[in-house]
Amino acid sequence: MERIKNDILQLSKFNSTPEKGLTRLSFTKEDRGAREYIKEQMKEAGLLVYEDSAATILGKLQGEIEGGPAVMIGSHYDSVRNGGIFDGNAGVVTALEIARVFKENNIKPKYPVEFIAMIEEEGSRFRGGLFASRAMTGKVTRQTLDKYVDNDGITIAEAMKDFGFDPDKIEQATRKKETVKAFLELHIEQGPILENTKADVGIVEYIVGIEEIEVTVIGRPDHAGTTPMTMRKNALDAAAPVIANVSKFALEAGEGTVATIGILELEPGAANIVPSKVTFTVDIRSRNVECINEVKDKIINLLNKETSCEIQTVQKLFAPPVKMDEQIVGDLSKYCDELGFKKQMMLSGAGHDAMVMADITRVGMIFVPSRGGRSHCPEEWTEFEDLQKGIELAYCETVNLSK
Amino acid sequence: MERIKNDILQLSKFNSTPEKGLTRLSFTKEDRGAREYIKEQMKEAGLLVYEDSAATILGKLQGEIEGGPAVMIGSHYDSVRNGGIFDGNAGVVTALEIARVFKENNIKPKYPVEFIAMIEEEGSRFRGGLFASRAMTGKVTRQTLDKYVDNDGITIAEAMKDFGFDPDKIEQATRKKETVKAFLELHIEQGPILENTKADVGIVEYIVGIEEIEVTVIGRPDHAGTTPMTMRKNALDAAAPVIANVSKFALEAGEGTVATIGILELEPGAANIVPSKVTFTVDIRSRNVECINEVKDKIINLLNKETSCEIQTVQKLFAPPVKMDEQIVGDLSKYCDELGFKKQMMLSGAGHDAMVMADITRVGMIFVPSRGGRSHCPEEWTEFEDLQKGIELAYCETVNLSK
Repeated sequence: MERIKNDILQLSKFNSTPEKGLTRLSFTKEDRGAREYIKEQMKEAGLLVYEDSAATILGKLQGEIEGGPAVMIGSHYDSVRNGGIFDGNAGVVTALEIARVFKENNIKPKYPVEFIAMIEEEGSRFRGGLFASRAMTGKVTRQTLDKYVDNDGITIAEAMKDFGFDPDKIEQATRKKETVKAFLELHIEQGPILENTKADVGIVEYIVGIEEIEVTVIGRPDHAGTTPMTMRKNALDAAAPVIANVSKFALEAGEGTVATIGILELEPGAANIVPSKVTFTVDIRSRNVECINEVKDKIINLLNKETSCEIQTVQKLFAPPVKMDEQIVGDLSKYCDELGFKKQMMLSGAGHDAMVMADITRVGMIFVPSRGGRSHCPEEWTEFEDLQKGIELAYCETVNLSK
Repeated sequence: MERIKNDILQLSKFNSTPEKGLTRLSFTKEDRGAREYIKEQMKEAGLLVYEDSAATILGKLQGEIEGGPAVMIGSHYDSVRNGGIFDGNAGVVTALEIARVFKENNIKPKYPVEFIAMIEEEGSRFRGGLFASRAMTGKVTRQTLDKYVDNDGITIAEAMKDFGFDPDKIEQATRKKETVKAFLELHIEQGPILENTKADVGIVEYIVGIEEIEVTVIGRPDHAGTTPMTMRKNALDAAAPVIANVSKFALEAGEGTVATIGILELEPGAANIVPSKVTFTVDIRSRNVECINEVKDKIINLLNKETSCEIQTVQKLFAPPVKMDEQIVGDLSKYCDELGFKKQMMLSGAGHDAMVMADITRVGMIFVPSRGGRSHCPEEWTEFEDLQKGIELAYCETVNLSK
């Protein structure tokens, strides 16, 4: 456990906002520092270390079957702005620690194992997100690298070049299906369920599907004193039934469906003027796409009843639910029992690289508890004992998948 | 009618935003330009022109009773930022035109008549509002002048001094009750009622009371994907019952009560984070203070039912309803009938200098129609024929009050 604690603390030093949480953007000197640390640790664990053309770090342990499909395990080490020291890093440290234990136990797997560390999962520099896994599954083209820019207008391609990677070779990062046997990722939960159920680890069954819609309601900016209630076109009144019912709709849909209005803006936004425009987002997530549709349909039905204001609805985001591999889920469950860990079968409410990797291979995910359910903030914390248990579980399954 | 049209258009030239509505802030060169025009017109109408120590322009027509209490008529000529050319100015032009007609008709009133033009009613430079009438009723002290600052940090006192007024003499603007017989103000309606009822003029019975409360709801910024619906402290959910019911509460209270949520802000304001803080204002207005209390109590009751979030409520503003003088209202109603004007008895949903003047004298207000109910915007418009009718009505009552 001292080793994983040391890894987490060493990695936490590569941080551009040391006074205010962890900020480690892709292709920066903080990326460089963490990258060198990870590569060094991988080499010490006896791995063959290289980087693919999307800047993902891979440490390979050769298997008996030369050129056989690889079991991959890892996560990302970029962060949100002013985030915590566990998000992503916990999964990278998991890979490092498992590599060390393979070496210590002198395990020679049948299939190769690739220990990996990815960047730009959060999209906090270039806003895309899931960059490395998207590149690995053939979803990032040369054009993509010119399209996304950071706050200073620098494209991914420019940042890559400055960092020593050739954007023209990006498509070489693509992995053929037959080269990958499975993908395993450990991540902090980022939610309160494990803490509330006092479970040691979470075994993810589904990464939820997500739909984000943006609703714009157009009314009229009347004077709040001089306009009788019956003569108004109040955009907030038109939006109110949705605001008041969206949580109920999520509960009614069941299956762990969640729905959230996180952005809600009024115009002109003066105390004495009737709101003429309301813009709000609804983020709907479920393991069952029918539940997402049910919530969305109820919202649209309410909006269709509105007669005094004009309403526009735009789909901002849609990703279908991703089912984790049943065999891997079953294995993880069995190893939990053998190890004496209290397990919790659960959904992942956030997206992860594993979700993208499911396009080309069988995937499994392990969650470890987040104190207070907090993440993406300086207070983000996971007890090292809990992380240790997650790593033991991941180790068992990595051995199993690679034998 | 050509004269009043000319007045309105001449005054509209003293404008710091000629491309974007009318902006005329107090103690600026636009104030100076309009002030010189008004004083010039007053002099031509044979009035004795002076300015009080709060920079209000007064044009006095001597009455038979020397030193007798004065009938005052007028309004303000400052504007909101990017407002229209009628708000306030319509009432100042009313005063100018009535003065001319007194002269033309060679009317010698028994009581003196004071035609007045005030500034900083809107509070758009120093944010206080109703400055001149508050000074006239003894509510502005020397300290007040140091307290309010404009966007450049200039105090009222400094601006006055630069403009040629002595802030140390501000309290000399106070009028003793016995020096004022009545106060009459014509103003644009700023609402849609006269247009909707096709009335020529509105006779104000009450200026509504107003209460503004600010509600702050504190929840927790959970991840919108990873936090089950039942484990959230969603500040927007806590605010939703009020958002959904505030208009209904106003209608239930009756007596023309209105209630508006004009400001509503979410924190942190990200699509994938549960709102941890919601701040909103409720502006409640009615001619009956019990109706205001009824709406407020229903809101507080709803908020008291909330258990998951912390709620704070602050009163930002309270002004009781002001009843117009019954005799003046009756007179105006009678003159309307005699002149053949279609009248509408009504409330003023906005505050006016007349409301403040009610502290020291009998007041009456006349409204003229606003096209589309619009005001405080470049589109603000009143037909000159409608303004002419309002002026004729005001003339009758000015003659009546001063005889």
